[in-house]
Amino acid sequence: MTVETKPTTTIRFHRILLTGAAGGVGTQLRPRLKAYCDVLRVSDVVESLPAAGEGEERFVVNLADKAAVFKMVEGCDTILHLGGVSVEKTWEEILQGNIVGLVNLYEAARQYGVKRIIFASSNHVVGFYRQDQVINSRDPPKPDGFYGLSKAFGEDLAQLYWDKHGIETVSVRIGSIFPKPTDRRMLATWMSYDDAERLFMAAMTAPLVGHSIIFGMSDNKTVFWDNTNAKHIGYRPKDSSDVFRDEVEAKFQKLDLNDVATRYQGAAFTRTGPFFQDDGLGGKKA
Amino acid sequence: MTVETKPTTTIRFHRILLTGAAGGVGTQLRPRLKAYCDVLRVSDVVESLPAAGEGEERFVVNLADKAAVFKMVEGCDTILHLGGVSVEKTWEEILQGNIVGLVNLYEAARQYGVKRIIFASSNHVVGFYRQDQVINSRDPPKPDGFYGLSKAFGEDLAQLYWDKHGIETVSVRIGSIFPKPTDRRMLATWMSYDDAERLFMAAMTAPLVGHSIIFGMSDNKTVFWDNTNAKHIGYRPKDSSDVFRDEVEAKFQKLDLNDVATRYQGAAFTRTGPFFQDDGLGGKKA
Amino acid sequence: MTVETKPTTTIRFHRILLTGAAGGVGTQLRPRLKAYCDVLRVSDVVESLPAAGEGEERFVVNLADKAAVFKMVEGCDTILHLGGVSVEKTWEEILQGNIVGLVNLYEAARQYGVKRIIFASSNHVVGFYRQDQVINSRDPPKPDGFYGLSKAFGEDLAQLYWDKHGIETVSVRIGSIFPKPTDRRMLATWMSYDDAERLFMAAMTAPLVGHSIIFGMSDNKTVFWDNTNAKHIGYRPKDSSDVFRDEVEAKFQKLDLNDVATRYQGAAFTRTGPFFQDDGLGGKKA
Amino acid sequence: MTVETKPTTTIRFHRILLTGAAGGVGTQLRPRLKAYCDVLRVSDVVESLPAAGEGEERFVVNLADKAAVFKMVEGCDTILHLGGVSVEKTWEEILQGNIVGLVNLYEAARQYGVKRIIFASSNHVVGFYRQDQVINSRDPPKPDGFYGLSKAFGEDLAQLYWDKHGIETVSVRIGSIFPKPTDRRMLATWMSYDDAERLFMAAMTAPLVGHSIIFGMSDNKTVFWDNTNAKHIGYRPKDSSDVFRDEVEAKFQKLDLNDVATRYQGAAFTRTGPFFQDDGLGGKKA
Amino acid sequence: MTVETKPTTTIRFHRILLTGAAGGVGTQLRPRLKAYCDVLRVSDVVESLPAAGEGEERFVVNLADKAAVFKMVEGCDTILHLGGVSVEKTWEEILQGNIVGLVNLYEAARQYGVKRIIFASSNHVVGFYRQDQVINSRDPPKPDGFYGLSKAFGEDLAQLYWDKHGIETVSVRIGSIFPKPTDRRMLATWMSYDDAERLFMAAMTAPLVGHSIIFGMSDNKTVFWDNTNAKHIGYRPKDSSDVFRDEVEAKFQKLDLNDVATRYQGAAFTRTGPFFQDDGLGGKKA
Amino acid sequence: MTVETKPTTTIRFHRILLTGAAGGVGTQLRPRLKAYCDVLRVSDVVESLPAAGEGEERFVVNLADKAAVFKMVEGCDTILHLGGVSVEKTWEEILQGNIVGLVNLYEAARQYGVKRIIFASSNHVVGFYRQDQVINSRDPPKPDGFYGLSKAFGEDLAQLYWDKHGIETVSVRIGSIFPKPTDRRMLATWMSYDDAERLFMAAMTAPLVGHSIIFGMSDNKTVFWDNTNAKHIGYRPKDSSDVFRDEVEAKFQKLDLNDVATRYQGAAFTRTGPFFQDDGLGGKKA
Repeated sequence: MTVETKPTTTIRFHRILLTGAAGGVGTQLRPRLKAYCDVLRVSDVVESLPAAGEGEERFVVNLADKAAVFKMVEGCDTILHLGGVSVEKTWEEILQGNIVGLVNLYEAARQYGVKRIIFASSNHVVGFYRQDQVINSRDPPKPDGFYGLSKAFGEDLAQLYWDKHGIETVSVRIGSIFPKPTDRRMLATWMSYDDAERLFMAAMTAPLVGHSIIFGMSDNKTVFWDNTNAKHIGYRPKDSSDVFRDEVEAKFQKLDLNDVATRYQGAAFTRTGPFFQDDGLGGKKA
Repeated sequence: MTVETKPTTTIRFHRILLTGAAGGVGTQLRPRLKAYCDVLRVSDVVESLPAAGEGEERFVVNLADKAAVFKMVEGCDTILHLGGVSVEKTWEEILQGNIVGLVNLYEAARQYGVKRIIFASSNHVVGFYRQDQVINSRDPPKPDGFYGLSKAFGEDLAQLYWDKHGIETVSVRIGSIFPKPTDRRMLATWMSYDDAERLFMAAMTAPLVGHSIIFGMSDNKTVFWDNTNAKHIGYRPKDSSDVFRDEVEAKFQKLDLNDVATRYQGAAFTRTGPFFQDDGLGGKKA
Repeated sequence: MTVETKPTTTIRFHRILLTGAAGGVGTQLRPRLKAYCDVLRVSDVVESLPAAGEGEERFVVNLADKAAVFKMVEGCDTILHLGGVSVEKTWEEILQGNIVGLVNLYEAARQYGVKRIIFASSNHVVGFYRQDQVINSRDPPKPDGFYGLSKAFGEDLAQLYWDKHGIETVSVRIGSIFPKPTDRRMLATWMSYDDAERLFMAAMTAPLVGHSIIFGMSDNKTVFWDNTNAKHIGYRPKDSSDVFRDEVEAKFQKLDLNDVATRYQGAAFTRTGPFFQDDGLGGKKA
Repeated sequence: MTVETKPTTTIRFHRILLTGAAGGVGTQLRPRLKAYCDVLRVSDVVESLPAAGEGEERFVVNLADKAAVFKMVEGCDTILHLGGVSVEKTWEEILQGNIVGLVNLYEAARQYGVKRIIFASSNHVVGFYRQDQVINSRDPPKPDGFYGLSKAFGEDLAQLYWDKHGIETVSVRIGSIFPKPTDRRMLATWMSYDDAERLFMAAMTAPLVGHSIIFGMSDNKTVFWDNTNAKHIGYRPKDSSDVFRDEVEAKFQKLDLNDVATRYQGAAFTRTGPFFQDDGLGGKKA
Repeated sequence: MTVETKPTTTIRFHRILLTGAAGGVGTQLRPRLKAYCDVLRVSDVVESLPAAGEGEERFVVNLADKAAVFKMVEGCDTILHLGGVSVEKTWEEILQGNIVGLVNLYEAARQYGVKRIIFASSNHVVGFYRQDQVINSRDPPKPDGFYGLSKAFGEDLAQLYWDKHGIETVSVRIGSIFPKPTDRRMLATWMSYDDAERLFMAAMTAPLVGHSIIFGMSDNKTVFWDNTNAKHIGYRPKDSSDVFRDEVEAKFQKLDLNDVATRYQGAAFTRTGPFFQDDGLGGKKA
Repeated sequence: MTVETKPTTTIRFHRILLTGAAGGVGTQLRPRLKAYCDVLRVSDVVESLPAAGEGEERFVVNLADKAAVFKMVEGCDTILHLGGVSVEKTWEEILQGNIVGLVNLYEAARQYGVKRIIFASSNHVVGFYRQDQVINSRDPPKPDGFYGLSKAFGEDLAQLYWDKHGIETVSVRIGSIFPKPTDRRMLATWMSYDDAERLFMAAMTAPLVGHSIIFGMSDNKTVFWDNTNAKHIGYRPKDSSDVFRDEVEAKFQKLDLNDVATRYQGAAFTRTGPFFQDDGLGGKKA
């Protein structure tokens, strides 16, 4: 994979840790991050994580394995944490990957003196706001499932580690990082890979961030989120979902306003779905 | 134990579940709750939980045991959840009692059709606000440790179960429920047992609460928290820490402003304390 | 009818106009207002309006009759406007009584130099806020029917006459003025006759009100509305719905949360009800 | 009239109703709307409304005539309502066109199942804010005359029909839609015809709008209004009043700050003007 | 002068400095403060300052005299600063007493290690808010003259010394401390001597205040100011202007709304008055 | 010095007064201002102020000299006040230049009928906000030294002269006007000379400003300040610090987060520095 955009900053790190490097976003970010560091350490839970290239180190790590996480974190200057579960799953999976795993990561960061973490939070932290509302980072969480709940937990954890231990975090409430928007809602939530690189690098290099929350989106015409509170980070998107508008609207001319997926920002995640099943332990719901 | 205050409402339930019934607050609330229900089911993790009296049912349950939690919840109309860990502890203890255990409780409530839960949250959700700030329930969380973090998780979970499943919760950010305030900060955070009863019963019987957050304190002269957002619950305290002011101030005439315990609302919980130790896995902190 | 409370102020007017004097609230206020003026002019649309007593003048007036309204207003120092339609009705009735009639009243006030009007607005201006929300006077209107809509119109009209013509208004968003609360919601919205007198007289005599909006309620324990913005008016209630709580709760132990009348502040007014019928002009709703 | 801009969206409707089609804005919008629908139904109160072209239907309708309004609405998918009175007039004219007429329109929409209305509201809803204030859509109304008052009524009506009947509205507080700005204030309030098309079509096609309020202006350098709350609609202006700045400023170098038309956003509408005359019914103003 | 109220706190200081001790408020506070300290140091600019009693030290000091101020401050634990000019005066007098003098005081406090100052600020910091507005301590200053301006300066100075040097201040925006309210506005602004003592001692003894701003008023029915932000100080008034309402209203039945003294919170201070005279240096005002 | 940008407005004044004309910013603005007036009066305290060119008048004035200030102001239409002390200095210097001098200026403006002043305030009014906070003009002042304190005083003075005397001011909280940004913080605070001209002229010619506060910065990617409240002024920057980003970041790759100069917006001004020394008058700090 070749990367054609030029680096968005000249600031360099010795070693950056990229978790979730085998995922959709991680795969895209991996070659880009090389421009900003001497050593790129990549990790993921899956063995399919491609082998280490030049200037790379490769770790296959289950985040719930504390000792492994500590080894993975040792010696890193900063962390771009895309790892863990990135969609709605069973509570048990979410618990291990996004709660137990995240505490392991922050504890390792604290004990090894890592100064800043870029945390891939999610718009699903606020998925139960309506699509006709424009919200900002101080509006209270309204998670739309176990996944969103785990990301709300992550943000609170980040706040704690800043207030108590002085470790900085930028929590990026990622909208939809994909090659292009594929439904009406993504016209608001889409972020291009280039803009993602811009945002993550701005977050990594801004002089002071404490714990800051920013919504990850491109310069879209349709907007659910007001990033005024995060302007100190210096992220300015250059792409827009609007070049895909006609294509998307052609496919979804009509929407059902009574479908919660049309009504709420979290879309299909707000459906009760398969992860809240009766599990045989309980009886009949009254 | 006899209770002398008269019931604060005539509304009655068939079966109330009181968790954490062997704790300091639970022990006080147990005899009071009998006035409001036909059957009081009490539970705790410890075997020292006193035997069931007339009109009582007794369950010894580890909240992390999902099947046991389901049995405990079955047949209850409403739950006053004081159970779980109620002070700062190791992450592992907090995780089991307050995160895994709470999901078990809400899942049981969802599957058995329990309509409302009164959740003992804590002021430690916002422990890193300063003592010269007056905050309200919409100000973002600033937890002061694993305990406060788990309570922030609980509030977000409650919000999710309301938005997604229609189960109501009143999250009570309890200040300090003790026989009397014993330090300067408690002049702000203290709540008498009688006021606790008033608050819990108001929360249990208010017509509509969705997910509401209320700070649990008596009518103290010194105040950290603005409960305007929670006035629909109908809680009006009758006691005040001020009758103990002279006694408390006599013991603590001088405070050290440079001690985080004086500076922050969470007091001693904001100290880095014993629960954030290097654990041998890591190396030296840079 | 005798009045036993002592006047709440010693400020006196020469002539007060009380409209809607034959209604439930007007009938109660009529003897009380005598204490504050030389001449009390009472009016209503119905002939059953009791005859003028000593120090009284009686007008039977349809508010939609502009000339009659002008005669009614001539010579008055101030107006307590309870007149017009006070419940949900057909649009045509609301239009005549509360929109056409109100413009007539303000035009008469402007042309005759009346300086201040106390306008009986209604909580139904904000009836579509939920009962678990505490709102204040700056939150945008959410009327629950034609009646609430007409009262929102009245408040905007009052604002216009203040900004443009210097005529002051206190818009009182009346909750429920009745002998006692008779359902669960009224525990929040109830205002006693004595408190109504206190509020109306405070509004009439406060030095400067411009256009102020205040929610009309007693000192109830359960509260939907935050009157902080209106504290300059100097209204302090002395009664509380709480003395009737047991009686009310005994009758309404269980509520249906899925009934909009339980969910919204406007209660039964939020139902689609009989005033939004298909009227034969239209066809079938798609 | 030919239209040279390309359509701003590919979403199409079967039948759009454009009211006020003979007015200044309506005349401009009429040919543009054809690109978005199979049938364009145009209506106005004046007989001078040009004849129906291909793909058009023509209705001459007085909005106060309920039966005529119902016929006009039948069969339409959506409505762009520019009709009614669009400047300050006598109360009687405003009443019939903008209050009685608007209720007729919404009742017809409700009974015929029209899902969304774009309502031409006006900046005169907030005309009494000062020109050195930047306001947003949640600031309370301060109408500057009967016209602005009727538009405030319309917004509240729209809110009601959304909350109660699920009919969506975008209320567009139109600034000044003209070929070019012709005075200093219009440098802030001007909206080009192209931007008007962009705004109306964005409002018509956004997935979910509930009842949203947006200020209608181009991308002007001078701004009175903050549209953050309306960013979900996806309107992004491309024109700017600034290309006309020199021309305008040359004509109005000096302004009288003591003129209410300079001081308030509503400009000349805030003058007491000819529509608040003594009408012979009343006596002398005190 | 004897004092009959019992001390409001048992916390004692070794040496309190009371400046402005010969003024109206200072004279009342002087005997009361003795209950809270071993040594009461009193100071004023006038020689008429009564002689030192037992446990007192007496300093006649011009605040503009830096060396004298340093001597006055040496050895004090805390300062209740009522000194300086307390009404509207010429700029030159205000400058010396309230600006130069205040910097001298804070510099002395900084260099001698005084930890907390209670600063007599004034409602005239916000005198140009209207009497129909209820404001809080975060609303921007709108001073009504040189006096109010100097108090705004003092508050900013206090903020600076907290942020930069860690010296705490409670800025008390005093309403009207007099034996009783003597005009209509004072029904809102009045504070009794007893409540003043309660407020000053609460401010002096609260555990942490940083720089806090509180409005100084009794528990009046009519209110201009919302003290929610200052509830951590623990001030709860027991007196009310309302016992004087009839007496006051009898004297001022009618007010002129066009008089700025009726319209603005600062009352007569908002008049242009004698302290903004043309001074012969300038020419004619255009 | 030649100026190559074209005038930003065609509005012209007869005589503009530019104070501080010999300073860094003044020297740049001087030739630019000529395009907007018949006569440019320049002043400074230093004799090195270059001689008057064609269409210029030159005044050497100490702002603390009231008579001289009056002569300087006579006959001017508007004032761009860059004069006084523009960095942290001793209190005595700040006092004379920025407090005494500013009152002289406003008194002269009042007595000679000058209608509007553009006041060079400073970001040091809010220097103690953190660099990870985005603030707006209504957030309370947190000055970082005597200099910032004097600018806070100036803003309050400007508010007073607007509320009381109708003299308008735009207070420009200038970030960093230099040829280019030279450290990391300036990437947020930098304003180009061209943008400075745009801002000052917009402020001078906007129809109504009352007292408005605006932050002076270019269109930088990194932002500390939200200028939404000032959009009525019509300032739109065209330059950006970002073209210098690589150059700046190369020099300052690593920052010390524990240095207050990194943590706070006021940077080095927040250090206690040389202007808060013990001065021999006092004793040892406790």
